[in-house]
Amino acid sequence: MLRVAVLGAGRIGRIHAANVASSREARLVAVADPSGEAARELAARLSCEAAFDSLAVIERDDVDAVVIGTPTDTHVPLMLHAVRRGKAVLCEKPIDLDLAKADAAVEEIERLGGRVMIAFNRRFDPAARALRDAIDAGEIGEIRQVLITSRDPGLPPSGYLRHSGGIFRDMTIHDFDMARWLLGEEPVEVTATASRLVDAGLAEIGDFDTVMVQMRTASGRQCHINGCREAVYGYDQRFEIFGSAGMLLNENVRATTVRRWTRTQTDAQEPLLNFFLERYADAYRLELQAFLDAVQGGAPMPVTPRDGRQALRLADCALESALTGRAIKV
Amino acid sequence: MLRVAVLGAGRIGRIHAANVASSREARLVAVADPSGEAARELAARLSCEAAFDSLAVIERDDVDAVVIGTPTDTHVPLMLHAVRRGKAVLCEKPIDLDLAKADAAVEEIERLGGRVMIAFNRRFDPAARALRDAIDAGEIGEIRQVLITSRDPGLPPSGYLRHSGGIFRDMTIHDFDMARWLLGEEPVEVTATASRLVDAGLAEIGDFDTVMVQMRTASGRQCHINGCREAVYGYDQRFEIFGSAGMLLNENVRATTVRRWTRTQTDAQEPLLNFFLERYADAYRLELQAFLDAVQGGAPMPVTPRDGRQALRLADCALESALTGRAIKV
Amino acid sequence: MLRVAVLGAGRIGRIHAANVASSREARLVAVADPSGEAARELAARLSCEAAFDSLAVIERDDVDAVVIGTPTDTHVPLMLHAVRRGKAVLCEKPIDLDLAKADAAVEEIERLGGRVMIAFNRRFDPAARALRDAIDAGEIGEIRQVLITSRDPGLPPSGYLRHSGGIFRDMTIHDFDMARWLLGEEPVEVTATASRLVDAGLAEIGDFDTVMVQMRTASGRQCHINGCREAVYGYDQRFEIFGSAGMLLNENVRATTVRRWTRTQTDAQEPLLNFFLERYADAYRLELQAFLDAVQGGAPMPVTPRDGRQALRLADCALESALTGRAIKV
Amino acid sequence: MLRVAVLGAGRIGRIHAANVASSREARLVAVADPSGEAARELAARLSCEAAFDSLAVIERDDVDAVVIGTPTDTHVPLMLHAVRRGKAVLCEKPIDLDLAKADAAVEEIERLGGRVMIAFNRRFDPAARALRDAIDAGEIGEIRQVLITSRDPGLPPSGYLRHSGGIFRDMTIHDFDMARWLLGEEPVEVTATASRLVDAGLAEIGDFDTVMVQMRTASGRQCHINGCREAVYGYDQRFEIFGSAGMLLNENVRATTVRRWTRTQTDAQEPLLNFFLERYADAYRLELQAFLDAVQGGAPMPVTPRDGRQALRLADCALESALTGRAIKV
Repeated sequence: MLRVAVLGAGRIGRIHAANVASSREARLVAVADPSGEAARELAARLSCEAAFDSLAVIERDDVDAVVIGTPTDTHVPLMLHAVRRGKAVLCEKPIDLDLAKADAAVEEIERLGGRVMIAFNRRFDPAARALRDAIDAGEIGEIRQVLITSRDPGLPPSGYLRHSGGIFRDMTIHDFDMARWLLGEEPVEVTATASRLVDAGLAEIGDFDTVMVQMRTASGRQCHINGCREAVYGYDQRFEIFGSAGMLLNENVRATTVRRWTRTQTDAQEPLLNFFLERYADAYRLELQAFLDAVQGGAPMPVTPRDGRQALRLADCALESALTGRAIKV
Repeated sequence: MLRVAVLGAGRIGRIHAANVASSREARLVAVADPSGEAARELAARLSCEAAFDSLAVIERDDVDAVVIGTPTDTHVPLMLHAVRRGKAVLCEKPIDLDLAKADAAVEEIERLGGRVMIAFNRRFDPAARALRDAIDAGEIGEIRQVLITSRDPGLPPSGYLRHSGGIFRDMTIHDFDMARWLLGEEPVEVTATASRLVDAGLAEIGDFDTVMVQMRTASGRQCHINGCREAVYGYDQRFEIFGSAGMLLNENVRATTVRRWTRTQTDAQEPLLNFFLERYADAYRLELQAFLDAVQGGAPMPVTPRDGRQALRLADCALESALTGRAIKV
Repeated sequence: MLRVAVLGAGRIGRIHAANVASSREARLVAVADPSGEAARELAARLSCEAAFDSLAVIERDDVDAVVIGTPTDTHVPLMLHAVRRGKAVLCEKPIDLDLAKADAAVEEIERLGGRVMIAFNRRFDPAARALRDAIDAGEIGEIRQVLITSRDPGLPPSGYLRHSGGIFRDMTIHDFDMARWLLGEEPVEVTATASRLVDAGLAEIGDFDTVMVQMRTASGRQCHINGCREAVYGYDQRFEIFGSAGMLLNENVRATTVRRWTRTQTDAQEPLLNFFLERYADAYRLELQAFLDAVQGGAPMPVTPRDGRQALRLADCALESALTGRAIKV
Repeated sequence: MLRVAVLGAGRIGRIHAANVASSREARLVAVADPSGEAARELAARLSCEAAFDSLAVIERDDVDAVVIGTPTDTHVPLMLHAVRRGKAVLCEKPIDLDLAKADAAVEEIERLGGRVMIAFNRRFDPAARALRDAIDAGEIGEIRQVLITSRDPGLPPSGYLRHSGGIFRDMTIHDFDMARWLLGEEPVEVTATASRLVDAGLAEIGDFDTVMVQMRTASGRQCHINGCREAVYGYDQRFEIFGSAGMLLNENVRATTVRRWTRTQTDAQEPLLNFFLERYADAYRLELQAFLDAVQGGAPMPVTPRDGRQALRLADCALESALTGRAIKV
């Protein structure tokens, strides 16, 4: 039974904490948040201790592992603190918004032999898993093209956007990770274009809301990603993997399989699951499971700090390409 | 080049006439209708002769075959007149609303060796053909259950209904024919239930608007038919054939493959093709083709008068069952 | 926190016991099964007590409610024993295979004011719930026709079949309950046909494997049910509800939304969830939740013994109709 | 009744000739092909004259319009010859493989006031038309992203490839035209990547088989195109148009709406229509109709030589981008 503390009692920390609390293999020891109130409320609901100071919680003897769901700029110090105390870490993406700092952290973790997993939860979505399994089973032969559609239901609050690191590092970073994972090869070149079609006011903070990215690997495999901060029909998450022997599609997920026929629509499906907490609820749970399994079984981490660094690097390349109009070598 | 006359210049006669006119294997000689104006207008459009008297047209030496699309009560006399003059006949369903008269006509046609095809056009719909071919190829093994959904977009005018022979003989008769054709065995027992859920006023003419029929064959194959005179979402025509090795479904047909996603609907398909003239346009054309092929090649008629009689018999059984609440042996 | 015991440690008892164990509102006190081993194994896994004697468990002071998942012929005595001790009951269907005994039990429970819910779990399936909600919201106007498809993946073992009460009482009974629930009116007439198309050997025990049922309500609403003990493509569970203002369909559920395109198939969906334990896992969980809510909140039971009795009555009518070839008044 | 000659009796010429022959508004006067045999055979089948010399046919007094379906390098001289004789022209794409020559031809045609339509037939596909109509009706608000998938069932013969002008000018050129037409704005920047994943031997002729293209317009609208010379599951032609108020998808077209369920696949659809002659049969017919309507009604040509030139320019930009790894300004 692994003893786990969750750092951060915000939206994402609450998900992780609930998953730890209901896991048969872990015990939720404490949740920590500088906002004592958020921590206390969450701890009360999940019957664990509440804490204020994340560093102190990391140091507790009765904590074997920590899940980091704090603001991005605290990821690196908390991760390194935990690694130095020999604690296993599941850390939210991105490692850091600054590639140099991320690189330094990854190297330090590797030097110390730290047990760290980066929380690219979408790899653990059952449908994504089914895609990867079908590819591995050779169902579609050699991969030629990967297409990723990734549109959010609506713009986040401007306060969030201001510290998000920009659409590529905040939102598309998930797609960069999935692209690497599905392509089975590293992208060597990135071209991106970025527009402000939802909110022209984003120019103020130098951000964009609508993007397209094109990448290729050394062997010539190709990848397209499209993203938008707003899709009126809901949270749109689709994959298409085209290979020499076939194609795999992953359609959107809905609450039920009911279909409606009326005077104005025929065969309309249920609305999309509205956002990532609902759409990827299973993925968050299975991600934690994979983390616990790796920690307890001693197997390599399924998503490494280097994976986190690489996705960030692709995001940086995309931003540079969008700003300069040039194709960027990774 | 078969020389063909079309009898009847109404809705269905116009379809047949246009198909004859554009066929490479037939020449449209004349269209006949007691309403001289309807005949003249149609003939002018299709560059053929207009006539008033169907019997006279049948007798013309330059007419090899006739298509009968006149009111139901004229079907038998016109068919017999044509058969006695050695003309091939494609006759609209039903043969007659009265089973005894239909029986007598079928026997007379068979005695005379008449070349008559009954126009159950749905057998020639490409999707129905694909179903039949897949069954014949053994794709789903032995048939166990056939389900037919058959709903019209809206109630016909009351003038039509008054002379239609009732929903079973007028509308469901197509489904009885398809049931026989898809089951591959004769139904031996029919149970039906009939309601007035669209227009209670149909009680006045003893008709119904919403029906369900259940049938079984001697070997135990089962068939369900549902029908309704009104479906607000359009003309609903579906088949399901369930067998020991699989299942075949035939979905509705739409004008295009476009799908719509908006704030209020996701993945909604195009509206259904609105009614039988649009939905079965190909079937009418291929039906005529099959008729011409049979006449010119000397092969047996693909749909015989006996088929027409049998569908009528099932319709009568269904009506009797609905009125008496008893299962009826065919 | 309701203290619950589960009676029966077979396939269905294990589901209920696991759901009780993981519920936040209930505590699993004990599982009882005449096979001590089955009870011990399940109890060990779920950290509760194991028992041999169900009656004794019912009588325990620390048991507030019992879930009955024992063989059918014990349902009535266990239910009544529990009711007489003032315990709340969630009892698997059917109440009994004999309608007279079921009737007597229902009357006794009602006389005693017993708190009993019959486990028609499908009403709690999220898709079924969405159908019912859409109907209640008036989305499809007045209901005209309900179609239910209910096919199992394969024949159960002959030992099971011998004591199952026959396909109508064992398998179709779920569909009878759903028909009542979805129609919103009581069926007043039942016609059924039953065949042996999967295994002719079922004649030996007087059972069937392929059935169709047709029902109507007093106002003329119609219902069709089809069932088969074997569908090679998997566990097929679909609903269609056709009304004056539209139609609702409930498609099958799959493990993921992945679709496959290869040389031999295009746009093929994932296999169906194989059988009821997988397909209705959520429904079992939500059913227990509804039971706990009703018991603790004092609200009426969402599915009553009288509902259980009524489904059994329809099953009996269907069997009688299939055997006699007559329509049966309920 | 427009008198039309078809130049070229190859695959595409035969399509156009058959459509002219069966049109009610045109009369097929002659078909011309340097291979006298091909012309004679086609002419015999369609009951018109056969000719050897296209220039002579253009000059005939009884020819009002010509359809040019000859090898690409003859397009410009034949078009100009026809324009100078005052004949209307429907010319296959591309105008020429050389942009400078195409530019010169377009300018000459415009100077002469020539009536020339370039045969981008896909704009006339009913589904494409429905997309355009829905966009025009404001159904999806302002366009943000257009995605085009365009994969052929298999590599053409190497003889064809050698003179095709390369994948961008031969195959993707259709998609460039559709992109312009659907975006409603001119692309101002093109980035492309091209690989040889089907046949490495294409390096010999400097061609590619798998491509991705990314474009943006001045206002920031984005477009992605993917193409491949081989898709084992068939001819894959899809569009996705994402806008501020919704999304439109255009799925592939199939022969029928039948779906198959077996032990190994569930809900598999019919195979795709295998290649462009089948998939775009309606589009070819409607394209000719649009040409005839424009010629006879005096309206502007629905697809102009300048459209043809612009698509070629985008193809050239894509090739340059793929070869240099740079984004190209149009």
